[in-house]
Amino acid sequence: MIKQLAVLGSTGSIGQQTLDIVRALPHRFRIIGLAAGKNIDLLTKQINEFKPRFVYFLDRDALARLANTEYEFLTLEDIAQHPQVDTVIIATSGKSGLSPTLAAVKVGKNVALANKESLVMAGEIITKEAKLNEARILPIDSEHSAIWQCLNGETQPATQLILTASGGPFLHYSPTQLNGVTVEQALRHPSWQMGRKVTIDSATLMNKGLEVIEARWLFDVPFENIKVLIHPQSIIHSMVEFIDGSIKAQLSYPDMRLPIQYALSYPERLPNPQLPRLDWSNIKDLTFEQPDLDTFPCLKLAIEAGRQGGTYPAVLCAADEVAVELFLSRRIKFIDIANLVGQALEQHQFIARPTLEEIMAADTWARESLAAGYRR
Amino acid sequence: MIKQLAVLGSTGSIGQQTLDIVRALPHRFRIIGLAAGKNIDLLTKQINEFKPRFVYFLDRDALARLANTEYEFLTLEDIAQHPQVDTVIIATSGKSGLSPTLAAVKVGKNVALANKESLVMAGEIITKEAKLNEARILPIDSEHSAIWQCLNGETQPATQLILTASGGPFLHYSPTQLNGVTVEQALRHPSWQMGRKVTIDSATLMNKGLEVIEARWLFDVPFENIKVLIHPQSIIHSMVEFIDGSIKAQLSYPDMRLPIQYALSYPERLPNPQLPRLDWSNIKDLTFEQPDLDTFPCLKLAIEAGRQGGTYPAVLCAADEVAVELFLSRRIKFIDIANLVGQALEQHQFIARPTLEEIMAADTWARESLAAGYRR
Repeated sequence: MIKQLAVLGSTGSIGQQTLDIVRALPHRFRIIGLAAGKNIDLLTKQINEFKPRFVYFLDRDALARLANTEYEFLTLEDIAQHPQVDTVIIATSGKSGLSPTLAAVKVGKNVALANKESLVMAGEIITKEAKLNEARILPIDSEHSAIWQCLNGETQPATQLILTASGGPFLHYSPTQLNGVTVEQALRHPSWQMGRKVTIDSATLMNKGLEVIEARWLFDVPFENIKVLIHPQSIIHSMVEFIDGSIKAQLSYPDMRLPIQYALSYPERLPNPQLPRLDWSNIKDLTFEQPDLDTFPCLKLAIEAGRQGGTYPAVLCAADEVAVELFLSRRIKFIDIANLVGQALEQHQFIARPTLEEIMAADTWARESLAAGYRR
Repeated sequence: MIKQLAVLGSTGSIGQQTLDIVRALPHRFRIIGLAAGKNIDLLTKQINEFKPRFVYFLDRDALARLANTEYEFLTLEDIAQHPQVDTVIIATSGKSGLSPTLAAVKVGKNVALANKESLVMAGEIITKEAKLNEARILPIDSEHSAIWQCLNGETQPATQLILTASGGPFLHYSPTQLNGVTVEQALRHPSWQMGRKVTIDSATLMNKGLEVIEARWLFDVPFENIKVLIHPQSIIHSMVEFIDGSIKAQLSYPDMRLPIQYALSYPERLPNPQLPRLDWSNIKDLTFEQPDLDTFPCLKLAIEAGRQGGTYPAVLCAADEVAVELFLSRRIKFIDIANLVGQALEQHQFIARPTLEEIMAADTWARESLAAGYRR
């Protein structure tokens, strides 16, 4: 049985690693859909290598001039819903993941989800549709994959989810030290190799806040039962506590290919010599500490936005995306990311039970109101 | 549904903690059988409290003079096999657990097994009978319970079992330091409260060796895929590695009541306010190191005896039991425990595929040949 996969966001970090898994296990997986937004050169190479049946690229004409294999050009949503696709991998960045995710769950498709914004912005809508149509959402984030693996076989819900966080490059920095950090420093993550946006989000701890909101929807656990624990070695990827006090944890080196492969192979596990095995003669010490919510206010903002729900998480996501862009283009300081997100949340006209359109409108409002202060 | 339990070895450490679980969860468990060998006062109290239907005590007449409730006096084997017993807890110490364990699996009974010697001495025979009669062996040892919990829901066998060991009170001792240790020092275990025999076995690491042999039979994993890792905090109770390199671990404070309760409640987990929950604000550091097999040769002896199989593990168990007794009565030094066990294994006339009778004969031979040198 070969699973037919469509990768949305195939030129990004998760997309490329997904293709690595397919290269390593060609007897189990075949790529039949590829989609990307910006990197036409890499997409063209991928098309030539994997010969997918369905392709999407933001600039359709540019792609037509470059790619010389046959393919059918489809929208992200059409690829996500296509009957020939067994599992769709949503590895796009930002809000562009939302619409294809929703399209896929509406037809009961298996969705391997790496895009955080989908569940953060519209977790209630997406999980309701998934349940209704018996679609499975298979998490690709290492933390959620860890939780999912630990819940495997348990007959009762978790009493607590413990999401671990490396703490990022600025762990133990004082507010004064944080005031002066550069883009280069923020991009130097101590344990994970990731895309630029998520690397900055890891440095602010916004990333962990988004993951808390995702976990709430993926595992149907209330916010008060989701804890964040700093674990700088990034070996324990998260933990689950059960009603008898027993805790299960999932461990591995920080390598996204493991959670990607698990989402694709579930419920099976597949041997893959490229995946590293933990070498316990080199692991002396796993450390843990509580997060510093005052120095890293993004985590607090995210959990609070998630707890309030409604349109707040969409505003959080959008404001953070713009603020991170502004930081990466050196127009604001690192600590201003949290300030701008906080301001956007304060100024937002909250809607408690929004439609998808209202969520998208909140997203647009946050982007525009935030960008308005920083026109070139 | 109330499960009817028989506790063999009810006055020992595991037996008493089993009764604690029953006291905490009287709506789920009822004691209908109790058995003990030495502590008549405690057994009498337990009989008065739990009013079991079936009782065994080594000295039948002494018990008859003391206990004033009605009960039926049965052998260990008859209690273990009784149709009214849903789960029999084998918490006796030493080889006395073997015969009732075998009796229970022969009638397809659920056996919650705390006694190490049963599987170490006759793992092949017991697991074969269990399979034949669809009996379940539910491990109570914290390490094996951890592995069992981590295997829960997995569809494929483990590629590696990692048994953690506290390292005992003499971790990092040099051979010279070890030469002078006293009984009092050896009985002072850093993380676990246990009976005297198992506390000494923890100090020599023999306990971990016996657990390796048990794990081999409980989980059908070859010896080369079972590793021992020193973890002094005793928070991670063991780990399982899968074919994709992912590792799952089970964590809790060192408290035997959790694995006991899990064995009784499986596949459910039950809330029990008496079981402590890990407090992550107090856990800063989990450390790991490789065991020192030269300074603690008992671990090496046990694994080698297990690997060779046949009658060797029975000789290992018997020689260790006698040697620990000699140490506790201050007739030999701590380091002589390993020496005596090693000598017994060397002098033993090995049988590769022994019957139960040949296993018992090897046990008797080892006890006698070892004790012969230490007559009063």
